[in-house]
Amino acid sequence: MDETINLVLFSGTDDKLQAAAVITAGAAALGKPVNVFLQYWALRSFTKAEINADHGLAAEAGESGRKNVDALAKAGQASWAETFRQAKELGEVDIQACSLSMDVLQIEEEDLDPLVNGVEGVTAFYLNAGDGRIIFI
Amino acid sequence: MDETINLVLFSGTDDKLQAAAVITAGAAALGKPVNVFLQYWALRSFTKAEINADHGLAAEAGESGRKNVDALAKAGQASWAETFRQAKELGEVDIQACSLSMDVLQIEEEDLDPLVNGVEGVTAFYLNAGDGRIIFI
Amino acid sequence: MDETINLVLFSGTDDKLQAAAVITAGAAALGKPVNVFLQYWALRSFTKAEINADHGLAAEAGESGRKNVDALAKAGQASWAETFRQAKELGEVDIQACSLSMDVLQIEEEDLDPLVNGVEGVTAFYLNAGDGRIIFI
Repeated sequence: MDETINLVLFSGTDDKLQAAAVITAGAAALGKPVNVFLQYWALRSFTKAEINADHGLAAEAGESGRKNVDALAKAGQASWAETFRQAKELGEVDIQACSLSMDVLQIEEEDLDPLVNGVEGVTAFYLNAGDGRIIFI
Repeated sequence: MDETINLVLFSGTDDKLQAAAVITAGAAALGKPVNVFLQYWALRSFTKAEINADHGLAAEAGESGRKNVDALAKAGQASWAETFRQAKELGEVDIQACSLSMDVLQIEEEDLDPLVNGVEGVTAFYLNAGDGRIIFI
Repeated sequence: MDETINLVLFSGTDDKLQAAAVITAGAAALGKPVNVFLQYWALRSFTKAEINADHGLAAEAGESGRKNVDALAKAGQASWAETFRQAKELGEVDIQACSLSMDVLQIEEEDLDPLVNGVEGVTAFYLNAGDGRIIFI
């Protein structure tokens, strides 16, 4: 079995991306390679224009969830983007934008934050995934 | 390791189903068998009454996301249902409705779009999944 | 390949948790060990204060979905918490709270429902997951 963890990120809210960043950083810390494939709203959150913006939380968070998350940010918790940057320094993390989602959202390669390593189609994603696990977030 | 990709579809919004359709079509193009198991709102979207309706987008899409998706539809992009149909022609794709979700939503077998091959329980889903990957969307 | 099913639960709405409970119970019935890792809003739903509350449904459920789910509850369908309890009696199901999410939501170990076996970090989660499948819900 291939140790690689393959993450398909679809959602672009700050809570889901924080969960994804923790899963990525944990794998990197254990020496597991991580491939991240960005679709739709997750892709939009990885653009230069959006990466430092507030992307909201899942609707279910409610007011109390919002307060919890804001309190941590004020206390200096690393943002999801920062956690992904640290994971890339720590281990083997490759982040690719889904070419179809680039078309849907009319995003060009130069619009992407430098965290993103490149653009690929779903077939390339599967080939890189090898026998590794695939997790959709 | 079994090459089969097993997708559990829960969400029925058009963006999530389009992402699922692309993942299915990519697997089919590479010769990987795909088992799809439909729960809750994804199941509802695969009924005859709903399959061609507008199922909305994830709340986080916002107005700008809505515009992007509508623009593509006008430009003739295949709907998720059409992409699933093509994937079935291209490869080995089996779509099953979750029997428990059928009960919850009071859906009968004759209400399902012909894209759906049958109805099964979660135990049958696991047995068909074999050693293949399981992805929840 | 390891038979263990590893579920990362993020969402805390009643429909997603019911889907997760069914996937857990099905695996337990087939003798597959199940590790559940609770993050964010799923973790909040597993606290003593929240486990019997109404956690709403995914926004896309709409009014008709709400009616379907309510009708079943009135007809005596087991809640997701009850289904998890039954799965624990039936098989090998271990439920762990994500330590980082505990910090985010300011939840203490004594706040957790007895369904939760303990608290662990993401590294421990990966180590327990072994070669088993990982499903994010």
